[in-house]
Amino acid sequence: MTRFEHEPEKNSEGETLRQSLEDYIAFLGDLVSHELEVILPTQWMVPENLQQAMKYSLMAGGKRLRPLLVIIACEALGGSREAALPVAAAIEMVHTYSLIHDDLPAMDNDDYRRGKLTNHKVFGEATAILAGDALLTHAFYSVVQASRKFGVPAESVLSIVEDLAEMAGPRGMVGGQIADMEGEQGLTDLEQLKYIHLHKTGDLIIFSLLAGGRIAGANEHQLEALHKFGTAIGLAFQIQDDILDLVGDEGKLGKKTGSDVKQHKVTYPYFIGLEASREEVKQLTETARNAVLNGGFHDNQRMLEIADYLMARDH
Amino acid sequence: MTRFEHEPEKNSEGETLRQSLEDYIAFLGDLVSHELEVILPTQWMVPENLQQAMKYSLMAGGKRLRPLLVIIACEALGGSREAALPVAAAIEMVHTYSLIHDDLPAMDNDDYRRGKLTNHKVFGEATAILAGDALLTHAFYSVVQASRKFGVPAESVLSIVEDLAEMAGPRGMVGGQIADMEGEQGLTDLEQLKYIHLHKTGDLIIFSLLAGGRIAGANEHQLEALHKFGTAIGLAFQIQDDILDLVGDEGKLGKKTGSDVKQHKVTYPYFIGLEASREEVKQLTETARNAVLNGGFHDNQRMLEIADYLMARDH
Repeated sequence: MTRFEHEPEKNSEGETLRQSLEDYIAFLGDLVSHELEVILPTQWMVPENLQQAMKYSLMAGGKRLRPLLVIIACEALGGSREAALPVAAAIEMVHTYSLIHDDLPAMDNDDYRRGKLTNHKVFGEATAILAGDALLTHAFYSVVQASRKFGVPAESVLSIVEDLAEMAGPRGMVGGQIADMEGEQGLTDLEQLKYIHLHKTGDLIIFSLLAGGRIAGANEHQLEALHKFGTAIGLAFQIQDDILDLVGDEGKLGKKTGSDVKQHKVTYPYFIGLEASREEVKQLTETARNAVLNGGFHDNQRMLEIADYLMARDH
Repeated sequence: MTRFEHEPEKNSEGETLRQSLEDYIAFLGDLVSHELEVILPTQWMVPENLQQAMKYSLMAGGKRLRPLLVIIACEALGGSREAALPVAAAIEMVHTYSLIHDDLPAMDNDDYRRGKLTNHKVFGEATAILAGDALLTHAFYSVVQASRKFGVPAESVLSIVEDLAEMAGPRGMVGGQIADMEGEQGLTDLEQLKYIHLHKTGDLIIFSLLAGGRIAGANEHQLEALHKFGTAIGLAFQIQDDILDLVGDEGKLGKKTGSDVKQHKVTYPYFIGLEASREEVKQLTETARNAVLNGGFHDNQRMLEIADYLMARDH
């Protein structure tokens, strides 16, 4: 049995002690990183260079927010943490592939991400494109393992596959990315910006919550609550990003602020101002909290904590 | 009910007449193109430009070989043609995405494919990358529709999802593409070339046959026969490509011959000579035929015909 750095302690009765949210997040991050190591193809059959390129970006120190949401939603509905891990790993692969492709010279042309060289700067463009393709494809393999390894019913896993294809595909994240690219030539209203946020960022967050719920066997009412929660925190998360880019602490963020203004990117504060944007984040967090409180969940605690945590974050 | 140009005729008793292989292939091509039109996202919600880019390459006049194999395998096992269509459309999307990414400047840097401008020459690099990503993702959506629209059991569809992720991913097609790229710096032996052929081309062909079988509810013995058949015709198909590039008729091929030699690409004829390569295609076709004859299928006829057809093709 693997031991993890942030594993929760037990009391003298052998009961697991409840962790602070920060420790809990760090512990789940450990679990997800371990699952990613397990699920990544490492056979001699896969060219070494491709393995390295996939691993490089997966292990580049992301926040693991989406996997965290899969697990928290699953546990909130009384599901097993272990059964959520293959899907948690999958959504991190999808998120990572989207970053690799986003950073390419033909797209955002970024040399650094989170202080490390971007994938194509290390492995070359061709390998970076293929590593992204490989991660996206392998994500679906990982989803299926929820059924193979943990006996999640095929019907539920098939719905997760369908959701992932829907929310990461042309009607979801990729659609949002295209709209974002086209929007760089000038967005005219807040509705367009909302469309971009919902699909480019929100859809994968909503997916993560729904998937966690499906693994736990959530009913329609519970899935709807998760959807509401995800839509609200997804948008709040993005507005908070816009705010931090304007007034955040560069040291904490690990990147330069003011890039949106410099790139003439329209943002929430650009449209409605800084104070109204902060108010919007608060409102959305309230909406998210209410969705949880009325969702009929097994345990609300971590869901409420994560909503507050995302609102208060400074990086 | 849509009528198709190559639909089979009926006799005075109203029985459908058996078509020649050519007409049958053309008819299935019509069905697949129609299915692709149905399954492609066309809602106002998807940015117009992305829709156009996806459609452009999907409808650029490919041979539809892989979808054809899904349907033929399904029918050979007594399954329904209609139920095979969502998976047939899916494999064409995966094949098409791989061509779009392959043609990119960072990869093969091709301006034309099948006599038409490549995707990035028409839509720009960023959109071409995203159109490829969207097609790959949407393929998994399409696979799930075999269950949603035609009631194929969730267990079977989940196995198809798993096979697709496996055979199109890092252990499959993408692994083969990386190996091919690396091989351009000089392959040393036939084993490496076989690895590239098996994964870059063979895996999707094998997938198509297995998927057709799974939709029809094939047993393990039948799936094994389909796997053998696919491995043999997949390699034969690739060797035949190598041969045609050396001695084919440019008019029939619709592209210039001699490109492998010009690009210093190592090929089957390069390693073992033209005559031995032709002999190998013959042997592999025989292996494929035997797999079918011993597979315990419902109807062997089209499977045998397609094996002969691929061996004899001049384009």
